[in-house]
Amino acid sequence: MKIELINTGTELLIGDVINTNAAWLGQKLAELGLSVERATVVPDGMAIQDALGEACRRSDVVIVTGGLGPTSDDVSREAASAVLGLAIDVSDAVLKELTEFFAQRGKPVNEHNKRQAMVPHGGITLPNKHGTAPGVFLPAALGESRGLSCAVFLLPGPPRELKPMMEHEVIPRLREMLPGGEDRVCRYFKFTGLGESDISMALQNGLEAIGGLEIGYCLGKGDVDVRLSGPAGAIERAGVFCREALGEYLISDDRRLVEEVCVAMLSERGQWVATAESCTGGRIADRLTNVSGASRVLGHGFVTYANEAKTLHLGVPPELIAAHGAVSEPVAAAMAEGCLRVSGADHAVAVTGIAGPTGGTPEKPTGTVFIALASKGQPVEVRKRWFSGERERFKILTSQTALDFLRRRLSGYGLPIS
Amino acid sequence: MKIELINTGTELLIGDVINTNAAWLGQKLAELGLSVERATVVPDGMAIQDALGEACRRSDVVIVTGGLGPTSDDVSREAASAVLGLAIDVSDAVLKELTEFFAQRGKPVNEHNKRQAMVPHGGITLPNKHGTAPGVFLPAALGESRGLSCAVFLLPGPPRELKPMMEHEVIPRLREMLPGGEDRVCRYFKFTGLGESDISMALQNGLEAIGGLEIGYCLGKGDVDVRLSGPAGAIERAGVFCREALGEYLISDDRRLVEEVCVAMLSERGQWVATAESCTGGRIADRLTNVSGASRVLGHGFVTYANEAKTLHLGVPPELIAAHGAVSEPVAAAMAEGCLRVSGADHAVAVTGIAGPTGGTPEKPTGTVFIALASKGQPVEVRKRWFSGERERFKILTSQTALDFLRRRLSGYGLPIS
Repeated sequence: MKIELINTGTELLIGDVINTNAAWLGQKLAELGLSVERATVVPDGMAIQDALGEACRRSDVVIVTGGLGPTSDDVSREAASAVLGLAIDVSDAVLKELTEFFAQRGKPVNEHNKRQAMVPHGGITLPNKHGTAPGVFLPAALGESRGLSCAVFLLPGPPRELKPMMEHEVIPRLREMLPGGEDRVCRYFKFTGLGESDISMALQNGLEAIGGLEIGYCLGKGDVDVRLSGPAGAIERAGVFCREALGEYLISDDRRLVEEVCVAMLSERGQWVATAESCTGGRIADRLTNVSGASRVLGHGFVTYANEAKTLHLGVPPELIAAHGAVSEPVAAAMAEGCLRVSGADHAVAVTGIAGPTGGTPEKPTGTVFIALASKGQPVEVRKRWFSGERERFKILTSQTALDFLRRRLSGYGLPIS
Repeated sequence: MKIELINTGTELLIGDVINTNAAWLGQKLAELGLSVERATVVPDGMAIQDALGEACRRSDVVIVTGGLGPTSDDVSREAASAVLGLAIDVSDAVLKELTEFFAQRGKPVNEHNKRQAMVPHGGITLPNKHGTAPGVFLPAALGESRGLSCAVFLLPGPPRELKPMMEHEVIPRLREMLPGGEDRVCRYFKFTGLGESDISMALQNGLEAIGGLEIGYCLGKGDVDVRLSGPAGAIERAGVFCREALGEYLISDDRRLVEEVCVAMLSERGQWVATAESCTGGRIADRLTNVSGASRVLGHGFVTYANEAKTLHLGVPPELIAAHGAVSEPVAAAMAEGCLRVSGADHAVAVTGIAGPTGGTPEKPTGTVFIALASKGQPVEVRKRWFSGERERFKILTSQTALDFLRRRLSGYGLPIS
């Protein structure tokens, strides 16, 4: 089944907005086992008509986003009508909804808004719970008079309107068009602590042996998603295999990030974590507190960028810093132990390192970091890592590794050996 | 001048990679006063040939990214040759560079790598300092035999190779093609603390009166860029006008973020800042420490999510919290004053609020936040804000506002009145 995307919007072409809709739609279609054959961005206005005509001649399905608003350059409805040779009706049902929507806000429907009730003849409107513009589905048979056989979906541009409509209205219809599509599911297995090639080496043969799976690897920020789509039974077997092969590196099978898994596990046990950060400057606490409910598991965090802050708030002895340097295994351990003691938490993570671009030495080059984990009643453990690259990458990978150490301890796997 | 983009890469179509190249190129072209008329993404392989042929018939310039690598599905060179009716030469100069590149790594050039020395006949190679694949410029005259008059640029896909080549090789050539293009400059004026419409109301007429400017507004994360392109003299006058009209809201005229401006101003004065964060959970410290050199201006930061942490580390009296609630003006003030005292810094920012989705009350709904700024020898000041929306948006806007209060104090503007 050949499928194309057309995104309309001048803001995409002048770079004011990054086209994340295209990537999101591409992922959703990949989950169904469909690959987009071409994606085209055109400005607002009638440029869409040429692009849509060409796409309908090449493909079986075209998904259009944008151009359903009330203004004169929102012309996706008109363009589709012209391409498929359809008259335009005014939908009484949509007009009624629009009238009610505006009445609730004490306004009459004006002529511009009424444009949103227009539907190419034979089209099926798709409800929009987050905006006034309904989507439109034009089944392939409607293009017969022009010799076309291509189904067209007209969807709104704003992501919060587009995404639910895609999930609830478009994907079920695409499944019906696909042989065996109804039974197809997709699941993401998220791993961390191993490179993409290590993961594929460990999994590829076993996953291929299960049969019937589409396998994709996607490198995230410090983690790797293995995207599997196929029949539900095969996905089930694949999940068992992934756990057997690489269980200790598996964060989640539902796209949750490591911080979400940590907050959930701590919350379940009624345990607390505290953070002591030098080079990550608050990123670990920030990531944990991005999760709703973090206030039940994180009470105290420290950004001890200066040496005196490590001493003052965490009780790291100045002589320890003088003897080993602030970026060292003993100082990381003392930071974690001090953080545990001061906060009264059950677990404390601490990091000290050199984010760069300056501050590196031959023995401790930029990117060197010590990550420590202390837990009540257990000896503190420290691991050394080296994350090359830019400051932002360093912070992402260091915070990811620290959070993963916590996840491993909570899961009973323990820290990696080295 | 009609210009189109073609980005190649299957990873873009299945959503594994977001097409940030297209947005970046669109911005760079907008700075020259050029609008992209269409942007097309095609998978790796010969799909590019059809797309390029269509684009060359419609446009004056086509910029292609990707498909210059050594593997068999990197076929941008072949596609361009086929579309323009050109033979393919092997460039001795490129082959020599490739041979040297691999020799330095102790390897011979293999047959796959030699593909990167192929150049459509008459094409001009564009040097690539960050990779092995040179770019190719095919002037419009080369397509004569096929009745085409369209200049084609073939550029590498990886951003770190693409961006310098665009800046140093493509933009100067595009300027030559544009009437008056050599004198054209572009500058971004970044504002915060006002909405996009307030800014355009204040600036639009004055900027139009200067004449000769292309004006674009771009909403960022808590700030708004006003992008001006035009003759250097007009841009100079526009800068003076922007400062006169909205100086206190102007963060930078060189794209620097508020945290970069704060670190630079503190660093210049040899002053220190400390942070005390409840609802932002470390985001303010994280943003400051994203800036290289932050260790000269930030020594101490606190994430005091729990009430007892506010008391223990910042000395906020428990009775104050009991009387007013943790989310209140007196507690925000006490957090900032305590943070200043404990850290010995010159300035301290403190925030306490309700990030949601839970925890709101009728008097203090989700999104309520108090932001306090204390500086040595000055009375602490607190402002109340309400930022609706999701948790991430709340953290972005709260941290932006807190950092902007610091910028305002350092610039001598003082905090906003309410």
